[in-house]
Amino acid sequence: MLPIRKTAKQGKRGILERLDAGEIVIGDGGFVFALEKRGYVKAGPWTPEATVEHPEAVRQLHREFLRAGSNVLQTFTFYASEDKLENRGNYVAEKISCQKVNEAACDIAREVANEGDALVAGGVSQTPSYLSCKDKAEVKAAFRKQLDVFMKKNVDFLIAEYFEHVEEAVWAVEVLKESGKPVAATMCIGPEGDMHGVSPGQCAVQLVKAGASIIGVNCHFDPDTSLETVKLMKEGLQAAKLKAHLMCQPLAFHTPDCGKQGFIDLPEFPFGLEPRILTRWDIQRYARKAYDLGIRFIGGCCGFEPYHVRAIAEELGPERGFLPEASEKHGSWGDNLSMHTKPWVRARARKEYWENLKPASGRPYCPSMSKPDGWGVTKGARELMQQKEATTEQQLKELFQKQKF
Amino acid sequence: MLPIRKTAKQGKRGILERLDAGEIVIGDGGFVFALEKRGYVKAGPWTPEATVEHPEAVRQLHREFLRAGSNVLQTFTFYASEDKLENRGNYVAEKISCQKVNEAACDIAREVANEGDALVAGGVSQTPSYLSCKDKAEVKAAFRKQLDVFMKKNVDFLIAEYFEHVEEAVWAVEVLKESGKPVAATMCIGPEGDMHGVSPGQCAVQLVKAGASIIGVNCHFDPDTSLETVKLMKEGLQAAKLKAHLMCQPLAFHTPDCGKQGFIDLPEFPFGLEPRILTRWDIQRYARKAYDLGIRFIGGCCGFEPYHVRAIAEELGPERGFLPEASEKHGSWGDNLSMHTKPWVRARARKEYWENLKPASGRPYCPSMSKPDGWGVTKGARELMQQKEATTEQQLKELFQKQKF
Amino acid sequence: MLPIRKTAKQGKRGILERLDAGEIVIGDGGFVFALEKRGYVKAGPWTPEATVEHPEAVRQLHREFLRAGSNVLQTFTFYASEDKLENRGNYVAEKISCQKVNEAACDIAREVANEGDALVAGGVSQTPSYLSCKDKAEVKAAFRKQLDVFMKKNVDFLIAEYFEHVEEAVWAVEVLKESGKPVAATMCIGPEGDMHGVSPGQCAVQLVKAGASIIGVNCHFDPDTSLETVKLMKEGLQAAKLKAHLMCQPLAFHTPDCGKQGFIDLPEFPFGLEPRILTRWDIQRYARKAYDLGIRFIGGCCGFEPYHVRAIAEELGPERGFLPEASEKHGSWGDNLSMHTKPWVRARARKEYWENLKPASGRPYCPSMSKPDGWGVTKGARELMQQKEATTEQQLKELFQKQKF
Amino acid sequence: MLPIRKTAKQGKRGILERLDAGEIVIGDGGFVFALEKRGYVKAGPWTPEATVEHPEAVRQLHREFLRAGSNVLQTFTFYASEDKLENRGNYVAEKISCQKVNEAACDIAREVANEGDALVAGGVSQTPSYLSCKDKAEVKAAFRKQLDVFMKKNVDFLIAEYFEHVEEAVWAVEVLKESGKPVAATMCIGPEGDMHGVSPGQCAVQLVKAGASIIGVNCHFDPDTSLETVKLMKEGLQAAKLKAHLMCQPLAFHTPDCGKQGFIDLPEFPFGLEPRILTRWDIQRYARKAYDLGIRFIGGCCGFEPYHVRAIAEELGPERGFLPEASEKHGSWGDNLSMHTKPWVRARARKEYWENLKPASGRPYCPSMSKPDGWGVTKGARELMQQKEATTEQQLKELFQKQKF
Repeated sequence: MLPIRKTAKQGKRGILERLDAGEIVIGDGGFVFALEKRGYVKAGPWTPEATVEHPEAVRQLHREFLRAGSNVLQTFTFYASEDKLENRGNYVAEKISCQKVNEAACDIAREVANEGDALVAGGVSQTPSYLSCKDKAEVKAAFRKQLDVFMKKNVDFLIAEYFEHVEEAVWAVEVLKESGKPVAATMCIGPEGDMHGVSPGQCAVQLVKAGASIIGVNCHFDPDTSLETVKLMKEGLQAAKLKAHLMCQPLAFHTPDCGKQGFIDLPEFPFGLEPRILTRWDIQRYARKAYDLGIRFIGGCCGFEPYHVRAIAEELGPERGFLPEASEKHGSWGDNLSMHTKPWVRARARKEYWENLKPASGRPYCPSMSKPDGWGVTKGARELMQQKEATTEQQLKELFQKQKF
Repeated sequence: MLPIRKTAKQGKRGILERLDAGEIVIGDGGFVFALEKRGYVKAGPWTPEATVEHPEAVRQLHREFLRAGSNVLQTFTFYASEDKLENRGNYVAEKISCQKVNEAACDIAREVANEGDALVAGGVSQTPSYLSCKDKAEVKAAFRKQLDVFMKKNVDFLIAEYFEHVEEAVWAVEVLKESGKPVAATMCIGPEGDMHGVSPGQCAVQLVKAGASIIGVNCHFDPDTSLETVKLMKEGLQAAKLKAHLMCQPLAFHTPDCGKQGFIDLPEFPFGLEPRILTRWDIQRYARKAYDLGIRFIGGCCGFEPYHVRAIAEELGPERGFLPEASEKHGSWGDNLSMHTKPWVRARARKEYWENLKPASGRPYCPSMSKPDGWGVTKGARELMQQKEATTEQQLKELFQKQKF
Repeated sequence: MLPIRKTAKQGKRGILERLDAGEIVIGDGGFVFALEKRGYVKAGPWTPEATVEHPEAVRQLHREFLRAGSNVLQTFTFYASEDKLENRGNYVAEKISCQKVNEAACDIAREVANEGDALVAGGVSQTPSYLSCKDKAEVKAAFRKQLDVFMKKNVDFLIAEYFEHVEEAVWAVEVLKESGKPVAATMCIGPEGDMHGVSPGQCAVQLVKAGASIIGVNCHFDPDTSLETVKLMKEGLQAAKLKAHLMCQPLAFHTPDCGKQGFIDLPEFPFGLEPRILTRWDIQRYARKAYDLGIRFIGGCCGFEPYHVRAIAEELGPERGFLPEASEKHGSWGDNLSMHTKPWVRARARKEYWENLKPASGRPYCPSMSKPDGWGVTKGARELMQQKEATTEQQLKELFQKQKF
Repeated sequence: MLPIRKTAKQGKRGILERLDAGEIVIGDGGFVFALEKRGYVKAGPWTPEATVEHPEAVRQLHREFLRAGSNVLQTFTFYASEDKLENRGNYVAEKISCQKVNEAACDIAREVANEGDALVAGGVSQTPSYLSCKDKAEVKAAFRKQLDVFMKKNVDFLIAEYFEHVEEAVWAVEVLKESGKPVAATMCIGPEGDMHGVSPGQCAVQLVKAGASIIGVNCHFDPDTSLETVKLMKEGLQAAKLKAHLMCQPLAFHTPDCGKQGFIDLPEFPFGLEPRILTRWDIQRYARKAYDLGIRFIGGCCGFEPYHVRAIAEELGPERGFLPEASEKHGSWGDNLSMHTKPWVRARARKEYWENLKPASGRPYCPSMSKPDGWGVTKGARELMQQKEATTEQQLKELFQKQKF
């Protein structure tokens, strides 16, 4: 039985010190999805104004991840660039300044990190500006605005995450590198590469050349697909004789049926993904596979709840030598079922049982896979819809009425 | 567009006043499952010592349910009878007295209830004493111990829930009635009735005769099955010319394949149930169906997260005339997707889309239904295992080795 | 290893002699479905004019069933009453008289029966006359016309099969009894009983009282459901202190999702039923279960191909003491795979392997169950459609255009 | 409405005349699987001694394919090389000479071909000799022995089919070319190429260089996968500036989950494939896709029954200008349902209905996909089993007992 290590203030060692020493660093989970379900984030805009509106809810989620074993707490600053917050302003009850959101996020993360030995990572993500104008100076200015807050609040390191285009990710890394702090960079791409067709290997090379010390993927695909992508990144770096630490923070949803743009295009996104949620055993398989691939920064993105992060920490307990605090409330591989009154439930208190279980969906009228991209939309309608410019709201409305979307 | 009603202190009206006036009362969700995933409850014992160990986590969950629309906050006192807490003592880090757990639960629930206009309900559930000895006096004493705390803390009303045997439920109701407060009683049974073969209709009659003003079911089965059971209870009462309010708090898991004892016997219980989790749209269908059946106390049990409770409140918004606070962060029927950049995601901002979606499991190697009860266990082994007395740990171990469990 | 018994002319013993002696009698399979796939029968009318148009095709199918172990060859006279053949006249290339079809059917069946020791059974089934007018005399006249042919051709016994209403089945039995030959009667009903709500138990009682010596069910439901129905029939007879031999000839399609009217109402009927086809192992399970229930006349209906009948004969080989001729080309439980070059295919040469296999559908985009009856049809449309009189072709066309059928 | 063209003796035009003129040539279906189900072929050896033992059964199947629209009748000489027949001698009741089997096959095919305007194709397939010794002279001698019969019986052209190694296929083509007759060659490979790693494109180039006028794939994979392979072959030829007619004869089983060696490695092979059987509508989709890809010799292999071949002929009816004889018994796109008494069955008489149907499996306890290759076999066992030499029958038996195969 491994000891449970109470998180407690220790002399803090930086992210690169840990990774260079070969330690496993466990990331955290998915804030926007978890807080959407808790009632604090709106699907669609997915913006983090909750740091100001309901800090207690954000704080509690950070704390749960910390207890589950996270060594890194990311500031809840996803989509918190000024252009994004304004863009989606009509969704937000009261206008809250970009700076306030970012500052509050840093304060909350730091407060909880100090309850244990976790690091705080300031995070930036892709911007509407890039998609609409692609003006390098303008996009960089947006990142710099967030970076100013991260420097003022003295985060421990920086993460550029959720980029669909390596060009923008490189700009982000370049800005973040100005700080002198270690920079990690993850893209939300699959094995087919970024939206401009740059391969994962090439993306990795560009990010490292731009200054990232840690690279990998986050979001958009399930663990299996994401690990395949990181593997291609690793091979790209090897071919280019470059070195970097590897990182993976995938979805906690099974997405074997995704196309190039990931789970956004699945018909179940974002309000019907429940049947795809990974079990804790799926996560343990992921953690082992990630470790075997040489990845040492292992966490999660959308769908990852605290118990998913704990599953990473439990799977890699033998390598780390301890279990996280939340394992006080969890028997490894279901062994807390060994006292159940029903013998057939007691029989589930075994690793082999849960490893081999093929969980039923309980949905006999549903399929096991979906077709991404406008499945159910007639071909003509889809083609029209894909020409964004050509599709006015009126046209869409007519399409809905005429066609069988 | 319905107004969002900020929860705010109002002159409180009791549970029976509300139900007698024909109002819809929304219950809360499942504490043990939600807090297990957050890292504060241990599966197996499922005991609520978190009220003392981590009050902030319990408080936050109460608050999320309140914001989602709950009109009733149940004290987190599930399985908090003294015999149960002792029985499972070895799971709990430090011994915490039954009284302390129950008192803390009342305090937390009251604190959050006061943030809105919710009622606090003190809850008792089935006891190990009943199963092991069935001594009426002893079992009643256990309930009375909890009731003493509820009276001291002045909860608004009482719920006897999660009873597999109507005999024990009747004893609970009898004890709770001594308080003079309104009593609700729900059993965790399906259409086949209680574990001694008493039909749902007969159970309802006995509970009402014992003094319950509100009766129904909770836990163990999915909404469809649970509503079928409540329907049988309603018919039983009608036949006996008795009157009571109806209540339903089912699982948020699809369980079309359950046997008489519900989801406990499914091979996925409790760590592989993810694919069965209900979507918010499934919940809206449930809320409507419950309402149409005449049920006015509508809530959830294991698996119900805050967004599931919000879905009840949104479905019944037209009847209630307002939406809950958490609907600030939720567009009805996905309408917050109407601004998405991809037209085919915009096309999901419609009620018809989500109503008709048959969500894929993303698990092509898994079935859609399971066989309950020792599925995969050879018949000989199962028979032996079912004779609890005859199955020592050693025998079980040998069975595991010899047979293909 | 059981001996293979070459079918050879023996002194023939009648159906009742065999059943009274406790022998297992194996029926044949489904002619209309098998010959539809071979190109000789039209789905929709399902009439047997192939006996005249393509006798060689009918003869070959009889022969295959004989070789597979059938002890009874039913004349291919399904839906061969005069009213039905005329009704569907526009489907048939050239008008062929009812008498000619029935005579040819008898001749072919006798020719093949003489190649072995099989009995020939003349068969009648429900008539359009019953549905449209219900005039007893007229309906009986239709049966009598077919019976005249059966008597002239001297079939060994008679079967009244595929009746949805016990009233009409009783009329058929009464007519057939006039011949003095043994009469069997099977209804195409499920556990809910006939279309007028008569329970299976009551149907059985009425059929036996009308003179049937063998009763049971055929078609419309899968083996499990059909056996449940026969069980109810058996209990009905026991309660009425009546005796009869039991018979079962179900579909070779899995239909767990059927409503009262069986597979006709499934959306896959009749051209998308492939994924539901039973494997030979499913059939062996059925044969064993039927035998254990006391059924001794065991055969099949729509979907049953020769290899399905052989599976009955192989499963009950130990009880019968021999295997059918076609078992020369079939190793029991896959043992002919034991010489395969790949070891993992050799590993399939075991009973346990095939018994436990859960065969994949290879269709990840399809569900496992369907909703019967106008699934996908809006409620309003369905209601209108169910009023047959009110639905002109024009109305239907409009419904198709307006609604999302 | 297209006319039905009665097959009738015409001046026969050769296979190349037809293909060179741009005509669609429809192949036949799968003899070994169809005759296994009818009781005349043994799974495992899969040898065609039925041509001698039961010529009437082989003749009837040929006739059904002819009526369904086949323009080519392949002699039932699959695996009819001398080495194969001897190798599997213990499966065959009486020893029947290779020559007799091949001669009878030619006679039967010719007899039925003369009932219409079909061509007779003599076929050879891969040999055990190649796998065991790879001696070119010996392997070629085996093909030459079959060719002698084909020349004596004067078949119309020759097909080398079901080759896993292009090297052996080339040898076969070289032998068949000695005859001066047109030669077609199809391999049973998928997009990953032959068992030695030669790509589909390279295989195509080698076959054409060896003298094949028609090349493509047959067996082992479903239509989608097979068409993908033929596409790669086509691209290989284009790159090499070679020309040949394209041909495709895939499985009538869905195999999205196959590995490199195709359906042999699926756990359902060969006795649990029923849920994977293609519907007639799946076939129509295949025929259209094949046509659009430029394939003009379109047929089927294992699993293809006469109604599947008819579906090819119906889908390509507009291009060909007529329907096959068996379409007398089949309404296009279910239009024979338009007279059904139930309106919701009438509603199925539409192309859109069947095109969009996602047929349910009726098997809620089964998955939608399988893992190929010893799925369910423990890793240690599988590795041992894969070393064919190391696995004696005794070792296998022990493995079965110890491990959970």
